[in-house]
Amino acid sequence: MKKKAKKSSNPMWGGHYASGPAEAMQRINECIDTDKRLYLEDITASKAHASMLGDCKIISSKDAKAIINGLDVVRKEIENGNLQFTAELEDVHMNVEARLAQLIGDPAGRLHTARSRNDQVATDFRLWIRNAIDRLDEELKLLQTALIDQAETNADTIMPGFTHLQPAQPVTFGHHLLAYVEMLARDRSRFSDARARMNECPLGAAALAGTSFPINREKTSAALGFDRPMANSLDAVSDRDFAMEFLSAAGILSVHMSRLAEELVIWTSDGFRYVRLSESFTTGSSIMPQKRNPDAAELIRGKSGMVIGSLTNLLVTMKGLPLAYNKDLQETKRPAMEVADQLSLMISAMTGMIRDMKADKSRMNAATNGGFLTATDLADWLVINLNMPFRKAHHVTGGIVRIAETKGCRLDELTLDEMRKIEPKITKDAFKALNPAGAANSRKSYGGTSPSQVKKQVNNWRKSIAGESK
Amino acid sequence: MKKKAKKSSNPMWGGHYASGPAEAMQRINECIDTDKRLYLEDITASKAHASMLGDCKIISSKDAKAIINGLDVVRKEIENGNLQFTAELEDVHMNVEARLAQLIGDPAGRLHTARSRNDQVATDFRLWIRNAIDRLDEELKLLQTALIDQAETNADTIMPGFTHLQPAQPVTFGHHLLAYVEMLARDRSRFSDARARMNECPLGAAALAGTSFPINREKTSAALGFDRPMANSLDAVSDRDFAMEFLSAAGILSVHMSRLAEELVIWTSDGFRYVRLSESFTTGSSIMPQKRNPDAAELIRGKSGMVIGSLTNLLVTMKGLPLAYNKDLQETKRPAMEVADQLSLMISAMTGMIRDMKADKSRMNAATNGGFLTATDLADWLVINLNMPFRKAHHVTGGIVRIAETKGCRLDELTLDEMRKIEPKITKDAFKALNPAGAANSRKSYGGTSPSQVKKQVNNWRKSIAGESK
Amino acid sequence: MKKKAKKSSNPMWGGHYASGPAEAMQRINECIDTDKRLYLEDITASKAHASMLGDCKIISSKDAKAIINGLDVVRKEIENGNLQFTAELEDVHMNVEARLAQLIGDPAGRLHTARSRNDQVATDFRLWIRNAIDRLDEELKLLQTALIDQAETNADTIMPGFTHLQPAQPVTFGHHLLAYVEMLARDRSRFSDARARMNECPLGAAALAGTSFPINREKTSAALGFDRPMANSLDAVSDRDFAMEFLSAAGILSVHMSRLAEELVIWTSDGFRYVRLSESFTTGSSIMPQKRNPDAAELIRGKSGMVIGSLTNLLVTMKGLPLAYNKDLQETKRPAMEVADQLSLMISAMTGMIRDMKADKSRMNAATNGGFLTATDLADWLVINLNMPFRKAHHVTGGIVRIAETKGCRLDELTLDEMRKIEPKITKDAFKALNPAGAANSRKSYGGTSPSQVKKQVNNWRKSIAGESK
Amino acid sequence: MKKKAKKSSNPMWGGHYASGPAEAMQRINECIDTDKRLYLEDITASKAHASMLGDCKIISSKDAKAIINGLDVVRKEIENGNLQFTAELEDVHMNVEARLAQLIGDPAGRLHTARSRNDQVATDFRLWIRNAIDRLDEELKLLQTALIDQAETNADTIMPGFTHLQPAQPVTFGHHLLAYVEMLARDRSRFSDARARMNECPLGAAALAGTSFPINREKTSAALGFDRPMANSLDAVSDRDFAMEFLSAAGILSVHMSRLAEELVIWTSDGFRYVRLSESFTTGSSIMPQKRNPDAAELIRGKSGMVIGSLTNLLVTMKGLPLAYNKDLQETKRPAMEVADQLSLMISAMTGMIRDMKADKSRMNAATNGGFLTATDLADWLVINLNMPFRKAHHVTGGIVRIAETKGCRLDELTLDEMRKIEPKITKDAFKALNPAGAANSRKSYGGTSPSQVKKQVNNWRKSIAGESK
Repeated sequence: MKKKAKKSSNPMWGGHYASGPAEAMQRINECIDTDKRLYLEDITASKAHASMLGDCKIISSKDAKAIINGLDVVRKEIENGNLQFTAELEDVHMNVEARLAQLIGDPAGRLHTARSRNDQVATDFRLWIRNAIDRLDEELKLLQTALIDQAETNADTIMPGFTHLQPAQPVTFGHHLLAYVEMLARDRSRFSDARARMNECPLGAAALAGTSFPINREKTSAALGFDRPMANSLDAVSDRDFAMEFLSAAGILSVHMSRLAEELVIWTSDGFRYVRLSESFTTGSSIMPQKRNPDAAELIRGKSGMVIGSLTNLLVTMKGLPLAYNKDLQETKRPAMEVADQLSLMISAMTGMIRDMKADKSRMNAATNGGFLTATDLADWLVINLNMPFRKAHHVTGGIVRIAETKGCRLDELTLDEMRKIEPKITKDAFKALNPAGAANSRKSYGGTSPSQVKKQVNNWRKSIAGESK
Repeated sequence: MKKKAKKSSNPMWGGHYASGPAEAMQRINECIDTDKRLYLEDITASKAHASMLGDCKIISSKDAKAIINGLDVVRKEIENGNLQFTAELEDVHMNVEARLAQLIGDPAGRLHTARSRNDQVATDFRLWIRNAIDRLDEELKLLQTALIDQAETNADTIMPGFTHLQPAQPVTFGHHLLAYVEMLARDRSRFSDARARMNECPLGAAALAGTSFPINREKTSAALGFDRPMANSLDAVSDRDFAMEFLSAAGILSVHMSRLAEELVIWTSDGFRYVRLSESFTTGSSIMPQKRNPDAAELIRGKSGMVIGSLTNLLVTMKGLPLAYNKDLQETKRPAMEVADQLSLMISAMTGMIRDMKADKSRMNAATNGGFLTATDLADWLVINLNMPFRKAHHVTGGIVRIAETKGCRLDELTLDEMRKIEPKITKDAFKALNPAGAANSRKSYGGTSPSQVKKQVNNWRKSIAGESK
Repeated sequence: MKKKAKKSSNPMWGGHYASGPAEAMQRINECIDTDKRLYLEDITASKAHASMLGDCKIISSKDAKAIINGLDVVRKEIENGNLQFTAELEDVHMNVEARLAQLIGDPAGRLHTARSRNDQVATDFRLWIRNAIDRLDEELKLLQTALIDQAETNADTIMPGFTHLQPAQPVTFGHHLLAYVEMLARDRSRFSDARARMNECPLGAAALAGTSFPINREKTSAALGFDRPMANSLDAVSDRDFAMEFLSAAGILSVHMSRLAEELVIWTSDGFRYVRLSESFTTGSSIMPQKRNPDAAELIRGKSGMVIGSLTNLLVTMKGLPLAYNKDLQETKRPAMEVADQLSLMISAMTGMIRDMKADKSRMNAATNGGFLTATDLADWLVINLNMPFRKAHHVTGGIVRIAETKGCRLDELTLDEMRKIEPKITKDAFKALNPAGAANSRKSYGGTSPSQVKKQVNNWRKSIAGESK
Repeated sequence: MKKKAKKSSNPMWGGHYASGPAEAMQRINECIDTDKRLYLEDITASKAHASMLGDCKIISSKDAKAIINGLDVVRKEIENGNLQFTAELEDVHMNVEARLAQLIGDPAGRLHTARSRNDQVATDFRLWIRNAIDRLDEELKLLQTALIDQAETNADTIMPGFTHLQPAQPVTFGHHLLAYVEMLARDRSRFSDARARMNECPLGAAALAGTSFPINREKTSAALGFDRPMANSLDAVSDRDFAMEFLSAAGILSVHMSRLAEELVIWTSDGFRYVRLSESFTTGSSIMPQKRNPDAAELIRGKSGMVIGSLTNLLVTMKGLPLAYNKDLQETKRPAMEVADQLSLMISAMTGMIRDMKADKSRMNAATNGGFLTATDLADWLVINLNMPFRKAHHVTGGIVRIAETKGCRLDELTLDEMRKIEPKITKDAFKALNPAGAANSRKSYGGTSPSQVKKQVNNWRKSIAGESK
């Protein structure tokens, strides 16, 4: 019999010592708040297990049926709020089984045949993460769609492209947004790979060594949507790769989210004002009604710390643990679940912000007039038209930019004569290269920033996302 | 007016879009679950602020009194469970102030004079961490005391000292336990330094720039037990060093806790059985009644990952934030508070385990017979008595150990003649060096493992800890 | 022209100020030590680019040929140690190009047409990581093979299986080792997925916006073994997912390595002595010749911290960076390269240790006699033979174990009568379940610990690994 | 005798197996590149130890003198580049001792009396970190001085103060810069506390248990500038708190550095242009001569990831290690040393940037005209002059701002009549509150942004820093 913690109404360490420590143990051991979130996976897995036990004649089919029906009742009770989990029964598994025993009596005691809490929790947790991935994937698709919609709207919105947060070359805003669609596609693909890799069933590994009961692991595996049973029982109960990989993919995703969030903060800053967020995703101030603080973006950026910290948490907790089950593993559930929650919040808020935001095309456009953004285009013109080596063309362009800088004018405001002081062979044709919109249009190489490329990519993404829903 | 999130009963992204995003914003922005833990600090700080405003004639003393009394009522309502915080009022500050307005009307609107939520939350959070440090310090002292008690009991319990988890030299178990008392003393000293450094008052920094009201920052600072007001208002609202330093100290403490936990797991393992934990801090098995799984130790070890991960979280969240307040800062409260909670659990459970544990002296003692643990002592004897250079004494000892290894006997079971084959000048006196207990006793250098040194250190610690309570 | 740092022989901040800061800049900006490791990838990519420029008539085929031949000369010079990189030329790209210009003159200036350092470094770094993955995959296969060999040798070596580092049930050592083969297979599969995902070519993205030159990105992509060009030029130059994902997979691998290392440390400890490591992978002591410190295992365990820390490093560095290229990205190369190096060391050392280690079968076997390891088997016997519900069988077994504990004997040393005091229907047949080897043999469920299952899995792995080399 | 690794010219795992693993062991075990940086601390500590051995008559004073003189020769040889460390002698300690033996013969063999590599390396590493802290403290003081100089120059430079990167209230640039002086002061204070806490001497702890030689630990401790010997020998050899605390303080410092770096990147961006960096700390472009990329700032921001990652590294490596020495500890030196190096680079580059930067006062000033930055001041005027409750004053101000927003004018461009539509009691006097410079001037509360406060703080800092050098 599991030792029960003795209770004491005395303040923790004062008074009777004897009662204290046990309370400390009970509190540190308690995990029901986290654990109860596994109820559905636990019941689903137990039903699959009971059904297999019946099919394999390890328990009678009558008992199997009683268990399965009983578990359905427990599920309904939980979902209707009629069953309160208690910390005294420690975890979700014991809470469910205890209630089952009240409902159906003796047969409940047969459910745990050829099973252990070790393979049970490994199965439940894996199912939970798998579901979380499926949900996140849907949410990420919505975010991609919001970005693609804006990219289409802004396929020919010209803005400065930045390196070092300094204006470098004109790009289209649509092109910039599509970069995030690419990142999110990799994120989804990472989650998808993680899902495929984790989709193996631990059930049947029992405590750690497998079982001598004539179980059929293929059956439970298939019933729970797994691709196959795990091939090594010690691995099955001690492995938490699926959680570590989930958090690894989450960590990279959170970096992408924080990058986009940072850009929104910058784009909505007074110095830029490229973008206006909707009231729904900003907070104002009763005193400064014009204020639109990009709170949602800041929260997303801030929460990326939580995701990365949770990844660290999990890796540290797993580091150096001998096989097979160790109680440390209990501490792996919370960080994974909380990350799933936080990611959902981050993605939903980002989706809303992107959907609602309005690009200020004239501010963006105006910003392309500074910074000699088309200097590279002039150099390229020299290479193409005068067959100059690139390094020399670079040098010539530098001279011309210096004249414009001294005069305080744009490159296309120079006269042909002024340019010819540096390079006499330049012709009027060169001016075509100096217009920012023209420069963006000319970058038609695959994956380039020209509106035509952006529209092509938007179409590809539309098709690709539509294709998923088939 | 703060934009209110529109509610919708529809599933999040299905159906009417318009209702979705706002809900996403409301959910990501919500922090009341974390925030409500600041209620006491918030009310305390508001009372100090109101009192100062009254003293400085910024508000009337009648209004000040009404506010202070009203805040006391709010506090009681919260503590009696009669005031429910609502997420619609966003955070603890608005919840408290809104209730105050219901209770006392107009004067409530004067409380926020010469103040902003930015300096208010910085003050509240700082007070909370300061309290957490004070509580942890008490708990750590109890853990130290438990270790010192066991060290005294085991001042002359001989066991193998390990390097590389291989037996190296005989030590006393008391000495080993005192090593952790040293670590915890450094932990307490780190928390104490952090406390002193953070003990400056942000109140009066207002939104970020200070205020033109003739406030008296010394007064609020003193009333709240701070050493002085912070000297720069921009720093005051954007600084979270106190939380980062708290988590840094917590990270190192958690490493200490995980090391001791690891040792308990090893010491209670079947191969060692040096220590027996009480039933209160282990879990058993209904089927294997002899089983005592060191769950509490494993949970402590596992939770160290959470502490380290939370430190990472905080550093990542703060990285690269421009001044002054950014909403990202909202995400710094939860990791700090959760670490404070988890550390309390870890320390309490560890204290209970240490108090209750029983050293198996005979198992420990028996283990000192293997492994030629006194080889170094023989070498030292050669240095001292034959004036041999240490490196040569090492070499000679190696030869003698090899004989014992071949014979399969302990060093003190060799004959004098056998030893003399390697070094003819050895005398019978050398055998004194070969007994493990004797070897431990001989290490009387300051901080050494001899029982006499251990008792001295125990006395020092008793005095030092008693001195704290003066 | 790039501003050159002024040099000063004065101590850094003393004397003439003017010279200091520039030196500080030069030192912080310098990355040639890391960068020079990219020389091969840089030259390979430049050759592909030059060849494409020639094919597309962007440069003459004569120039293309001159460049390609020149680059081959540079490569040979580097590999023969005849070309020293200088920090003044900043990075590998400028060092190579500068040498090329010395060798072939003017055409060298055409190499950088339709290219930028931004897409160049992204390509080089990606190629480097891809190569590192290929090398690690080979090394991991060797480690798997070493484990499979030992698993075969120890397919029927019985040892205690542990939970909570407490003996739980008998397992086979071969089964235990195969758990790590599973983990490594997932590691390899993760690296393989990462490789596939990163195998897209950034070349042609130019600075950030693509180019107006009529380049053929398919051609360079194919020439460098990439599956396709990256679809978005902004993404191409700002993405470091490939490095983050590489380090994520490395983090999980390092957890696996640290777990096995921890087990080796425990297994070779005096309390266990299940395994003896070879002299080659341990260090001794001139004074204690019997000593075999498991240094390699400890170093592997310790280095897992470096891998996890480097993952944190990379995620932190990338967090919150706006698009496109930022100089922060320079700091992503070193952690990734160092992890690749350290992982190689860890895997090689682990492979050697595993190959050389000898299981002490008699120590392992003896350890299965304690701890009532077959209690579960007795309970299972009751379920199967007396049709007892599992929970009741558990309870009955508990009673029987308590008798054995009181008597201080093994379960199979009890008499039938003693067992029948608890459950009268028990028959002599039950004793079959009580032998540890028998218990291990009986766990024939798929993935279970029985020697027959272990041999099956060994065969599967042999075939699977042989199949890879086709 | 230490097992030597066998060498083989064959590629690692091909050909003769036997030679491979040992090479793997040698490579993973090697630490001389890191270790050699400890040479000075090693020799200094050895000299103190030898001197004490002589004083205590444990070795003859002649031998002591020979050792000390010999060590001085070794030191000179190293510093003149005449002594190459070899990986075969493993670490700095063995390299130094081996060379000493060549130089002085037999007495060299007496140096290691009453000492072990365990306490030796703990002492050396501690001395190294202590020196690093002293050096960093000087560097941080220089950075503080650079900030204070700029703060003085810009004591009355008005700029927008930001929350959420949105303009909130006018502040002075000097005030903003002083916020970082405060942060750096806390950093220095943290390093100073860490230094005091680590300043205890491990020497004399020997392998782990102390020694039976009549050593005088006070003597070596004092000779090496430590405050006292460590009180527990097991703690002395297994403790790496000093490194963890060093990296913790470094982590927080790096957050501060990254925040200032981020601000420099934003302030130099095209949208802001508040600040112009010198050519020495930016990189340009041969094609865009106006370009000044803030590379140094980006590198500092990027390197903060390395510092935080190294802290994680160390905590992970230490987590769960049993006492006393484990080889994992070897892996703690590199991250600590590399962080010390990188911090020096970061601080030097930041100091140079800050020294050289020029604030663009007119851009800053112009930016205070947008954003209704004085709305709060108007509300405060209403509170003070009309005795309005703050919350109501807020509301009234909101109404007035809305008018200005509709009109598209500044607050001080409204007519009195327009304001009186919202609040009839407003007088002309209110306009004083609406000027940004006036608003900044009015915030004279302690720590506030007014030029007078800034100058006071500058003076305080000047005195405080001058006081340190006494």
